[in-house]
Amino acid sequence: MSTFHEKLISASRKNTSLLCVGLDPDPALMPVKNVVEFNRAIIEATADLVCCYKPNLAFYESMGYPGLETLKLTLEHIPNDIPVIGDAKRGDIGSTAQAYASAMFQQWGFDALTVNPYLGMDALDPFFEYADKGVLVLCHTSNPGAADFQELLVEQEGEYRPLYEYVALKASAWNRHGNVGLVMGATYPQQMQKVREICPDMLILAPGIGTQGGDLENTVKYGVNTNGEGLIINSSRSIIFASKDSADYAEKAKLAAQELRDSINRARSEIML
Amino acid sequence: MSTFHEKLISASRKNTSLLCVGLDPDPALMPVKNVVEFNRAIIEATADLVCCYKPNLAFYESMGYPGLETLKLTLEHIPNDIPVIGDAKRGDIGSTAQAYASAMFQQWGFDALTVNPYLGMDALDPFFEYADKGVLVLCHTSNPGAADFQELLVEQEGEYRPLYEYVALKASAWNRHGNVGLVMGATYPQQMQKVREICPDMLILAPGIGTQGGDLENTVKYGVNTNGEGLIINSSRSIIFASKDSADYAEKAKLAAQELRDSINRARSEIML
Repeated sequence: MSTFHEKLISASRKNTSLLCVGLDPDPALMPVKNVVEFNRAIIEATADLVCCYKPNLAFYESMGYPGLETLKLTLEHIPNDIPVIGDAKRGDIGSTAQAYASAMFQQWGFDALTVNPYLGMDALDPFFEYADKGVLVLCHTSNPGAADFQELLVEQEGEYRPLYEYVALKASAWNRHGNVGLVMGATYPQQMQKVREICPDMLILAPGIGTQGGDLENTVKYGVNTNGEGLIINSSRSIIFASKDSADYAEKAKLAAQELRDSINRARSEIML
Repeated sequence: MSTFHEKLISASRKNTSLLCVGLDPDPALMPVKNVVEFNRAIIEATADLVCCYKPNLAFYESMGYPGLETLKLTLEHIPNDIPVIGDAKRGDIGSTAQAYASAMFQQWGFDALTVNPYLGMDALDPFFEYADKGVLVLCHTSNPGAADFQELLVEQEGEYRPLYEYVALKASAWNRHGNVGLVMGATYPQQMQKVREICPDMLILAPGIGTQGGDLENTVKYGVNTNGEGLIINSSRSIIFASKDSADYAEKAKLAAQELRDSINRARSEIML
């Protein structure tokens, strides 16, 4: 069994792609009613264009008990060689954090998970202990209010830096299994640049491209490692809801994914020159 | 339909109790195998001793799909006049936060929810908008690593204070519907005192009494409002696993709950003298 990191590199190189498609079915926006059918069609249309998929659990939980069944069936449609990030932003303490890690990595079987750092190292450790899984720590999120706490200047041994930079430093220090990454919203490219300086080798997941208006070129420029990799760019709505027509939504999703993958690759090749 | 706050006050006064029992079934510690039967017995034994119940979703999620069914059946056993806090520590942005709020308040039907503040105000707002529900924001958690980020000194307009105090100030400022509360671990009574000074009227949920070794007397002393209320003290393991014997676990849970409720009330009456 390969690790998340190995699966990611392999899928990314095979499909020449840093693109992650967010499988976030929203009944108000879906052109068809059946969530599993919708996701299956999106996956089939994009599986040779992505490096991973990322279902956000909120959408499935909001559909109640049957919604979780649709997530389970959706996961069965994702090819085995493409890793899946469970976007759950979990965070709890002690035995409860262990229970979440077990829920996400063992029950759902995700290859990686997003987690929230607010509770501290001992709350993240049960996730980190799954050395073959990826643990993506929220650092600077993509939303307008991200700065409320994440950009506060914090003091540590007489030095001052924004909280998100301190989180990046700690995540890097805690990365003893090499399975820790960071979530950096594509809507904040300057912060991305700073974090890439602090953590030259750490995997970065960048949501916020597409509907949220993230800056693609600077996200690629500042987000990749020296190898032109180490970055996952997620887009959800602008791909999966590219068309509201039940007759062509999969085809339009494929085109949107292809276009975004290619734009990312153009930006990569420019900086690798 | 009454609000969370009304239900809480009513149950608290009826049972003369600030005690919340955490319904956190851990298969490794349970004296019986059936989760619903276990929870039902605990609820029946303690329903006249508590002001609310608090299932932590992690334990149910870790049991997979059937685990969520046991949560659903468990909720049906809780008397309607006792409010239920969904301990889920959710936090996400935009439409995703809306989806979590819908999942927790509409699908699960919780009266209140714990949420994580790291993502900022706009991430919490979809929860706050449910004005009849309680939204309990993590402020200073009960775990040993809580200080990693929560006690960092942050700068705001030239003033320095620990991050958790700043979170308390912001939560207070954002409390336009009067439905916001704070989570303050009972293992940090000095921090509790500080937060009660900053937020004299805000509801505080204090986990960490019992197995985690929280300081009961100082938690009550510093945690209650001037009315001797406004505080929920949660204990999970020390009550629900008071006995490992399948023959008497409910009875022992009742005794443990009674003892803790009475200890809390003794501490309350001392400070109200």
